Amino acid sequence: MGDTVTSRVLAILAAFAPSHPSLTLSEIARRAGLPLPTAHRLVGELARWGALERDVSGAYRIGLRLWEVGSLAPRGLGLREAAMPFLEDLYESCHQNVQLAVLDGAEVVFVERISGRRSVRVVTRVGGRRPAAATGVGLVLLAYAPAAAQERVLAGPLTRFTARTLVEPAALRAVLAQVRRDGYAVSDRQIEDVSLSVAAPVRDGGGAVVAAVSVVVPAGAPPGQFVPAVLTAASGISGALSVPPARA
Amino acid sequence: MGDTVTSRVLAILAAFAPSHPSLTLSEIARRAGLPLPTAHRLVGELARWGALERDVSGAYRIGLRLWEVGSLAPRGLGLREAAMPFLEDLYESCHQNVQLAVLDGAEVVFVERISGRRSVRVVTRVGGRRPAAATGVGLVLLAYAPAAAQERVLAGPLTRFTARTLVEPAALRAVLAQVRRDGYAVSDRQIEDVSLSVAAPVRDGGGAVVAAVSVVVPAGAPPGQFVPAVLTAASGISGALSVPPARA
Repeated sequence: MGDTVTSRVLAILAAFAPSHPSLTLSEIARRAGLPLPTAHRLVGELARWGALERDVSGAYRIGLRLWEVGSLAPRGLGLREAAMPFLEDLYESCHQNVQLAVLDGAEVVFVERISGRRSVRVVTRVGGRRPAAATGVGLVLLAYAPAAAQERVLAGPLTRFTARTLVEPAALRAVLAQVRRDGYAVSDRQIEDVSLSVAAPVRDGGGAVVAAVSVVVPAGAPPGQFVPAVLTAASGISGALSVPPARA
Repeated sequence: MGDTVTSRVLAILAAFAPSHPSLTLSEIARRAGLPLPTAHRLVGELARWGALERDVSGAYRIGLRLWEVGSLAPRGLGLREAAMPFLEDLYESCHQNVQLAVLDGAEVVFVERISGRRSVRVVTRVGGRRPAAATGVGLVLLAYAPAAAQERVLAGPLTRFTARTLVEPAALRAVLAQVRRDGYAVSDRQIEDVSLSVAAPVRDGGGAVVAAVSVVVPAGAPPGQFVPAVLTAASGISGALSVPPARA
């Protein structure tokens, strides 16, 4: 019974997604697979606690209190706080999009993005996901991932976004070996025809690769031009992660 | 019974806080007021879903998946994404700490902070809280809050941090009137003796004040010097909030 209620509460939270961040009660019930009275009761409890909020139209959104709890995730804002000064420096050095991401299965999750009004358009958002094989940060994270995790991704399917997306396992495997040799990755027009990214690994105090940092620049820009700045940022963040964070 | 389980799940999430982001199972049980077997079962369910994660020591932390769900909060990352380009411009104009905050009762919650390596030290963190009356962003948010919300704060208690913290209701009331006249707030050494902040209101498409933006600079700096840049950022963010956001 406890299992059932907990899984229902989690199903309600999972009903919200970037493509539908605002849901009516009946939409929540349908997406969570719950009878309307059950959804009504649980949503009421979640809203009283602050995990959900109602907007002016009466629809439900994720609440500020859940955002606060989520901000305690070490791979979310904890990592992001350590990285921010170095991401700022990287942004100022190029005024292009700067991204920080972690690996979750076959996908990358973006934990930070700095995007000026003069940067090339990018399709990512903070808290958003992309297939790891198609992104610069993902190539870095896969290159240094445990072999079992790599093999699961190489077993496919690999999603095609453009004519240049890596969808052949052998080609992807060769690129991952290249990334380990070079210490950085270039993803050239694999997600969109208008942009490429240059990414480098972020390591924790034990030397494990825990995140990747990248710049996303217009297609046609020489990637090599951005490599030193991206490596500098990655090295700075790695250094910050190897000392215990100051607590506010 | 459903109520009970839901409240237990929420009590487990609420056991985590900025001052203790990592907890053992027995610490979770104690803080949530639950018997150890109950905590064990619910924590297991939360961990399988990704709401909690175990670190190398075996202790539990908030998980990446809860961070992702939390990132959908409109007053969290939604607001923050709209504001980021203008916060970047503000940061580049002064290289001081830049903050974006919303009001929750008598406290402000910081939804963004840009802090360079050259900025004065600040005690806030993203996802952190401070009493509204003692901060620049809080004075702005209180000044434009509904009268009932203002009165609850004025009824106290008002926490003292420094000799200059506003703790007299009459003095605070006068400052709020001044903020409405000026259109910005200055909080001079109210939180720490080393810093002051200049803050301005962010409005949604309907004209309601939904957030505040500030710079935190070393004490002794002339506040007036930062007012134009802060007002420009606030105006830019307000403009971005008055158009529907693009969806990635």
